[in-house]
Amino acid sequence: EILAAIEAILSPAGRPLAGRHALVTSGPTHEPIDPVRYIANRSSGKQGHAIAAALAALGARVTLVSGPVVVPDPPGVTVLRVESAREMLAACEAALPADIAVMAAAVADWRVAQASTQKLKKAPGAAAPILEMALNPDILATLSRHQRRPGLVIGFAAETEKVVEHAREKRLRKGCDWIVANDVSGGVMGGESNTVHLVTAGGVEDWPELPKAAVAERLAQRIAQALG
Amino acid sequence: EILAAIEAILSPAGRPLAGRHALVTSGPTHEPIDPVRYIANRSSGKQGHAIAAALAALGARVTLVSGPVVVPDPPGVTVLRVESAREMLAACEAALPADIAVMAAAVADWRVAQASTQKLKKAPGAAAPILEMALNPDILATLSRHQRRPGLVIGFAAETEKVVEHAREKRLRKGCDWIVANDVSGGVMGGESNTVHLVTAGGVEDWPELPKAAVAERLAQRIAQALG
Repeated sequence: EILAAIEAILSPAGRPLAGRHALVTSGPTHEPIDPVRYIANRSSGKQGHAIAAALAALGARVTLVSGPVVVPDPPGVTVLRVESAREMLAACEAALPADIAVMAAAVADWRVAQASTQKLKKAPGAAAPILEMALNPDILATLSRHQRRPGLVIGFAAETEKVVEHAREKRLRKGCDWIVANDVSGGVMGGESNTVHLVTAGGVEDWPELPKAAVAERLAQRIAQALG
Repeated sequence: EILAAIEAILSPAGRPLAGRHALVTSGPTHEPIDPVRYIANRSSGKQGHAIAAALAALGARVTLVSGPVVVPDPPGVTVLRVESAREMLAACEAALPADIAVMAAAVADWRVAQASTQKLKKAPGAAAPILEMALNPDILATLSRHQRRPGLVIGFAAETEKVVEHAREKRLRKGCDWIVANDVSGGVMGGESNTVHLVTAGGVEDWPELPKAAVAERLAQRIAQALG
């Protein structure tokens, strides 16, 4: 029985993603203002890291490009740590080619246009500064239209209203294949479960509220099915 | 011998801060831009939390007001968790009276003048936003000139150059008693040790590079000596 279980795990059926390379992003990005200050997004990295682990469990070789998080590295995964959106894009492009891209990171839309190399000093009596922002690269759209585009590109959308409608629009606008639309109207950022809708060219699958690990396993199985 | 050791710990000599209330701040502050974005400082909270633990070990009742950190709560300490500088000041004032105030947090000098209650959307083709900043309250200066001013108010200064000179100026400008001047020119933010200079009305003590726990113990001993 033990041998049979091991065999099942090692068999092609148990490792349907063997021989595939999956690129996953996770966590927030930090955009520097000066050497001690930065702009950040609220993202724990729990969902992205769980997806990396789930893909590795199905046999994929996984490259995880992670922003600053405190969740532990998933076992059996190559982890590349970055801070800013531009660093994340560069790490993703350097990791190509890939068969699968799951862009679960909460990437900052903007960075500070002119980050200071010196700590901004609060001069007595001086006015507070004005931070001019600049648009960051769009990692999901860039990979979706890349000359070495992964065969299956999956984006995430965290929405508080019109979740599916916004996700459908985002899928077309970004040029990706699937959107995992996360209903965050209940304030689940950083929590342990997610309620998602999987938006594909074929339609919408409504998943029940599930622990993040279960969302990851279900997504990994759907990926294996789509590539199988 | 064991009994003697316990007696030494429980005796007035081993608990010179018994009956004293110490207020300690630690960690960064997070200043909201909108519900998912914020401005942060680089601060692990390791030094501030170690100071809270060291003061408690000398018998003080300790209130630790902490920004968002991942270091564990020190044992035997009342921990109040806050996010923004304004929340930190409110928690400190509510914790008065105190005999000792050690302001080790890296408080944001500025917040976003008009934080948005809705997530800022990246409209296709739209320009990046401009963030107008507003001055945050100065917690160290406020406590130093408070009508219920703690008897011993200690501030921190992280400096990359002219460390002692800047700390001397800061001590006078803020109205506090001591400044623990931290030489961060080696890029030690988030590291395990600090090289500090203790700047008082009487002069400057140059301490060697020490693990953060040792800096904390030495500072707690100096506080006990000053109050003794």
